[in-house]
Parts: sequence; C-alpha cells; structure tokens
Amino acid sequence: MDIIRSKANNLVKQIKKLQQKKYRTSSYLIEGWHLLEEAGAAGATFEHILVLEEYAERVAGLPNVSLVTPDIMRDLADSKSPQGVLAQLALPRQDLPTSLTGKFLVLEDVQDPGNVGTMIRTADAAGFDGIFLTDKSADIYNIKVLRSMQGSHFHLPIYRLPVEELVRYLQAQGLPILATTLSSQSVDYKDFQPGPSFAMVMGNEGQGISAYMEEVADQLVHISMQGHAESLNVAIAAGILMFSFI
Amino acid sequence: MDIIRSKANNLVKQIKKLQQKKYRTSSYLIEGWHLLEEAGAAGATFEHILVLEEYAERVAGLPNVSLVTPDIMRDLADSKSPQGVLAQLALPRQDLPTSLTGKFLVLEDVQDPGNVGTMIRTADAAGFDGIFLTDKSADIYNIKVLRSMQGSHFHLPIYRLPVEELVRYLQAQGLPILATTLSSQSVDYKDFQPGPSFAMVMGNEGQGISAYMEEVADQLVHISMQGHAESLNVAIAAGILMFSFI
Repeated sequence: MDIIRSKANNLVKQIKKLQQKKYRTSSYLIEGWHLLEEAGAAGATFEHILVLEEYAERVAGLPNVSLVTPDIMRDLADSKSPQGVLAQLALPRQDLPTSLTGKFLVLEDVQDPGNVGTMIRTADAAGFDGIFLTDKSADIYNIKVLRSMQGSHFHLPIYRLPVEELVRYLQAQGLPILATTLSSQSVDYKDFQPGPSFAMVMGNEGQGISAYMEEVADQLVHISMQGHAESLNVAIAAGILMFSFI
Repeated sequence: MDIIRSKANNLVKQIKKLQQKKYRTSSYLIEGWHLLEEAGAAGATFEHILVLEEYAERVAGLPNVSLVTPDIMRDLADSKSPQGVLAQLALPRQDLPTSLTGKFLVLEDVQDPGNVGTMIRTADAAGFDGIFLTDKSADIYNIKVLRSMQGSHFHLPIYRLPVEELVRYLQAQGLPILATTLSSQSVDYKDFQPGPSFAMVMGNEGQGISAYMEEVADQLVHISMQGHAESLNVAIAAGILMFSFI
C-alpha cells in the first residue's frame, strides 16, 4: 500500500476540514486505539482509517485504510502525542424516540468541551439512558469532547435540539424535569429522590440554568455547600447528583 | 507611577521565572481579580502586584504595586485572556500539626493539574478539613492547579510529603486510611459510612492507588458502575465519595 506523504493530498485535506464544526455535517474524526476499538464494537461506519505504517497490522481487516507519514498524522491529530491512528466515521442519525422512559441527562448551554465529555462519560457510568444537549452546548463531535467522553457516545443515544423544542418534547413524554440550581432556594438533593424516569438538567458553567428552564422545571434541586468554596465545578455537581439519583 | 515597559526589567524577569516549579522555592504567582481578593481576605503576603494602568485604582491601598504594559502582562500571564492583574505571593509554610482530627483528602501521585485543583475545590465545598498530597502529585502552585482550585488553598491547609512519611503520620494520629480502588473487590461506597475522622485516598489517573497504599489502607472502597463506561474521571469519583461521606 502506498503511504500518503503530502499534505496536499485530497483525502488529507478533506479530513483536516473535519477539525472544524462547520464541515462536520455527515462525518467526524476520532483519534487513538481505544476509540477505534469502541467504534468497531459499536458497529460504526469507518469511512476512512489513517494509520502509521508501523501499525498497519493492527488495522488489518478494517475497511478503507490509508497509510500516512508521522508528519501528516501530527498535522491531523489534535493530541500532542498522537497514538498513530485516526478514523473518519459517519455521523449517526439520532431521531427522537416516539416514547421515552428512563433517566436522562440534559445539558443546557454547557460550553466547556471537557465538562460536556466528562458529564456524558459519568452518565454512562451511572447507567443513565441517554443525553440531551441544547443547540448552544459544545458540539459532542469536537475532538476534546470525544476525548473526555472516552467512547460513551457509542453507548448512549445523544440528542441535540433547541431548548424550547426539548422542553416540549420532554413534557409530551411526561418526563419530570429536574433542574439543578446554584441557589439554595430549592430542595437539597439529599432530601430528594426522583422516580425511575426523569430528565436532570445541568446549566451553563457561569450562569447556571436559564430563567426559562427554572420556570418550566417540575423540581429544582441544589447541593448544599459545607465549606468556603463558592461553587462546585458543573461536572462534579452532575456526578454527585447522578450517583445520588440512581 | 512609572509603567514597566521592558521585558528586560529585573522584576519582570524574576516574576517570569516563577512560571517554573524549580524557582517557586519561596514565592508563587496568582492571576486574576478573584484570586487577588481571596489572597487579601486570607491575609496572604503580597510581595509584588503587577497591574495594567487602567486598573490601578482597583489595587489602591495594596502594597508593592507596579504598573505594566499589556504586552508584559500577556507575557507573564498563563491565561489566554489575562484579567490585567497578577501577584507574587509568599509561599506559606505548612507544618504538620501535632494532632489531627477531621476529614482529609489524600492525593497519591495525581498528575493532572486540573484534576488536582478540582478535587481540592470540591473538598473545600464538602467541608473537608485539609489536603495531603504525595510528593509525586502535581504542584499546587502550578498556575493551572491554582485556576481550578479557585482559591481553596486559602481556605484549607495543604501538606505535601513522601507517601511513606504521610502514611506513618496518619497512622501515628490514629486516622483511618480509606483508599478508593478501581476494582470491585472492596466495599461499595453506598454500603459504607466512615466516622467523623478519616483520610480518603484518591490514586493516580492511570494506575489508581499504589500497591503500598492498598496494603496499608484500613478500608478499601469502590464506586459500582451501572453502565458501559469503564471508569470514572478521578475528580468525579472524588466528588461522589466526598459528598457521600460527609
């Protein structure tokens, strides 16, 4: 097999574009062996696999493999020490199910890729059934979100839609909206246990949940602080709440 | 007051050195207004305060103020959008107390600055009484740790020492060592409630706690996973455990 050596190669140029959200309309990129294995196990569609020559045997049997030089790998990978493999996968379609039960995490305008990825990974570990993101949250196909998720997007359905549409959908499904506030003018989470089906909303890092969400929520909860810290990191708060509510 | 305009200025050169751990023998740097206020409230010693001219009034009354140009501020600040103030503070001395009771978080060889900072901030929010770090953990005066801690090092005593010395000290104090494992061959945290005094150990991101720590621990606990994720981020796990054990 030939090795692609030029950054002007059309495949290299096409894959490089996927680093930008505006080009991720039907495909996205993953990096590293762990995500490649998870993608395979999940039956994802490998549109292209780019690998260093020294690892060619590790991808034997996988479709659409191209060999690239270390120079090109470094150019395409986000990681400072790339593991030598990346893949272009087809973006999955996630249609809203006609009926919904179970435990869902809702991220309202959460901006930081690391926070978004870590919360989805934690929801997966807590046995939650899926994720909703408002359309102003970080893109889950951002390479930093993918790195923090560690493959959880292959385990859980993830839906992205505007906040009002999301709320109407949850209400139509009869799913109680449980929203977390920074204010102590709500129930302490230790005094509250939700039923088997609910949607738990975490808000933006700086502002918390929106006034609209506070209005439509069926229940507001907060985590009482004992010490001097003014707040918890949103991903830490989500972890405490999810593991308390399962 | 004159404005320092040259990167060759001795004060600028001295402060720039504090970005590196090897020069932080008696001083460290903080950035931004929030930490400056926290430092003032905690009675920290301001050895130098560097501020942009436009903010000179906000530091009126504080000692050792120098004005610098935006160019120098950008050079000295780690943040991509510096807030216009940074300060050199005296490193506090933290001598081990002769008697110790309460809840303590122990970080054994935790490497990631964001994880270390977030766990200390969370311990503060949970009302823990102090922090121990092994000498192979990230330096808490690293600017990224300081950013994630959000001032919690002004609220809690933080001790740094070699792991064997730390264990001997905790044992001499009669403090039970509660170590968290990734294996499920230990008690699930939901079935365990410690007494009012304990030291809870979180291990390295990749390896978890050391074999030595597992050996000397009085109690091993883990968090049972419900879903498909293989593990939790260490800071998330610490948050779940600390809020469960208070």
